[in-house]
Amino acid sequence: MNDRFLRACRREPVDVTPVWFMRQAGRYMEDYRALRHRYSLLQICAEPELASAVTLQPVDLIEVDAAILFSDLLLPFTPMGLDFDFVKGEGPSIANPIRHAADVRRLRAFDPREALGHVLDTIKLLRRELANRVPLIGFGGAPFTMASYAIEGGPSTTYAKTKTFMYAQPDAWHDLCGRFAAIMAEYLAAQIDAGVQAVQIFDSWAGQLSRVDYQEFALPHTKRIFDALAGKGVPLIHFGVGTTAILRDLATAGGDVIGVDWRQPLDEAWAQVGHDHGIQGNLDPTVLLGPIERVFSAADEVLRRAGGRPGHIFNLGHGVLPTTPLDHVQQLAKHVHGLRLKA
Amino acid sequence: MNDRFLRACRREPVDVTPVWFMRQAGRYMEDYRALRHRYSLLQICAEPELASAVTLQPVDLIEVDAAILFSDLLLPFTPMGLDFDFVKGEGPSIANPIRHAADVRRLRAFDPREALGHVLDTIKLLRRELANRVPLIGFGGAPFTMASYAIEGGPSTTYAKTKTFMYAQPDAWHDLCGRFAAIMAEYLAAQIDAGVQAVQIFDSWAGQLSRVDYQEFALPHTKRIFDALAGKGVPLIHFGVGTTAILRDLATAGGDVIGVDWRQPLDEAWAQVGHDHGIQGNLDPTVLLGPIERVFSAADEVLRRAGGRPGHIFNLGHGVLPTTPLDHVQQLAKHVHGLRLKA
Repeated sequence: MNDRFLRACRREPVDVTPVWFMRQAGRYMEDYRALRHRYSLLQICAEPELASAVTLQPVDLIEVDAAILFSDLLLPFTPMGLDFDFVKGEGPSIANPIRHAADVRRLRAFDPREALGHVLDTIKLLRRELANRVPLIGFGGAPFTMASYAIEGGPSTTYAKTKTFMYAQPDAWHDLCGRFAAIMAEYLAAQIDAGVQAVQIFDSWAGQLSRVDYQEFALPHTKRIFDALAGKGVPLIHFGVGTTAILRDLATAGGDVIGVDWRQPLDEAWAQVGHDHGIQGNLDPTVLLGPIERVFSAADEVLRRAGGRPGHIFNLGHGVLPTTPLDHVQQLAKHVHGLRLKA
Repeated sequence: MNDRFLRACRREPVDVTPVWFMRQAGRYMEDYRALRHRYSLLQICAEPELASAVTLQPVDLIEVDAAILFSDLLLPFTPMGLDFDFVKGEGPSIANPIRHAADVRRLRAFDPREALGHVLDTIKLLRRELANRVPLIGFGGAPFTMASYAIEGGPSTTYAKTKTFMYAQPDAWHDLCGRFAAIMAEYLAAQIDAGVQAVQIFDSWAGQLSRVDYQEFALPHTKRIFDALAGKGVPLIHFGVGTTAILRDLATAGGDVIGVDWRQPLDEAWAQVGHDHGIQGNLDPTVLLGPIERVFSAADEVLRRAGGRPGHIFNLGHGVLPTTPLDHVQQLAKHVHGLRLKA
């Protein structure tokens, strides 16, 4: 097996820097768009054959060193009793968002091995189809990010509803995040048992919080998930956007590897989280929309900052954008692989 | 005159920490909403009597230590030939956004003393009506933020169009930002001549850029404005959101005082920009939506971090949100003023 990605997660030497891309399967790919003409996102997630096919598209088309399960962060919402769907161009929309403590108490506990059994089936199918070409990454959402979707109910730039809930109803907030922590710990353990070889926890919107608020309202719940998964024998990645001011706290919450966006140079971010962690990132995804020469020079800068130190996984600072030329993604992966490390 | 604000801008000792709020005149105020039933935002900006009345509302209702001219960042767009309006709940929308170098070349130069004479009239009227109660702050947008509005044409979370323009058409980008720098330098000089006693430059979205991109695409143009205004004898404030990773570069571009959002504790931000600068901030505006006890304790934490060092201006990390209770804003200002400094 190509185990560069797993070796880098464990901070072991590698021949070349491993690379994968958040949202490496998605709308920027013609094959994916063709499938989406016939099926909704949720239909694809629900059907192991389809989810598996989409997961494999970038593995076949781009020389990535890891596959990431095609799924959606919000799948656990449905068995919890939160009705959601996707509104074109706006992202997820929740029909019955959480506004009061009573809404939290009405949420249902569920066994992910049953209610999300189709995700676990997808994982088993993928492991067979991948036949050890590259490792498979599973994923889930951290409690703050899950709660922010559940409370906002739609797109937000200020997260005002989420934060007001936190400040005004702290007991209900901690109840809500405790439920998400318990569910995610179980769901991710089930993904590992089904065969994923690494797990990424997305706390995508944690960077919206001040440091003291992160420490009070997010960290303890996220930590519970990492603590629960720590003995499972697979590397854990912890990712968020705009986290420059809370990077050390993110590392305290957990994760063998910390995923960072493009705002801070990679070497500074790595020094902040500590070299006892791996680091993942951190090319601005919009760079891929520009000329290929700039893609290469920006990637070179990321690799120069990583300095050949074992433990770097090349990725973007957030997901591949829908308008990205596939060709640029392919050339970027080749370029990163072409630069042999002085290990 | 209450000159606490100006003294703090110059890092001189003050009796109590001065306070004002970004968007202290706005939709959270009943008086403002009443006026907006009859006039559009742009009508209010265009009419000195109305703009002046709105500017004074928070001066009368809240014990703020500075008034900020009621106006809009994008007013210079119209005389440049960029047609814009406000779409309810979505912010500004530009009918003919900039997409190509030719669009940049078509932009018109103009004399702000003529085309934006109504803003200067508002300033003169305000200085008479304020009669030295508190100083008056003028403001304008930094080139990156102005360009991002002009290119996106509407709301964006990724600034993909702006960054693609930067990467793919760097000459046109620098031409565009050079024009904004020239216009803003002239417009802000005219505001100072008309009577504003301090100027805040909003580079609201600069925090979307990686540090190297900020240095290449934004800093030189912003610096041109600060350099042009440096000899004018009024304090200059430089503000952006999510700028933790580029704070030092922001300070390099210019500003006697650096305005920061809530993500990083105030003392760390201040140490980063250097104590030869003042610091403005940095309460999360969403805190005002929660219980008043938390408003007070969060404000206390900001003041504790400032440590009584001369040069701190209390403010939010971004504008007052429309759903904010006026009462909380009033109590917060009183609370900050109630805490006497050990100066």
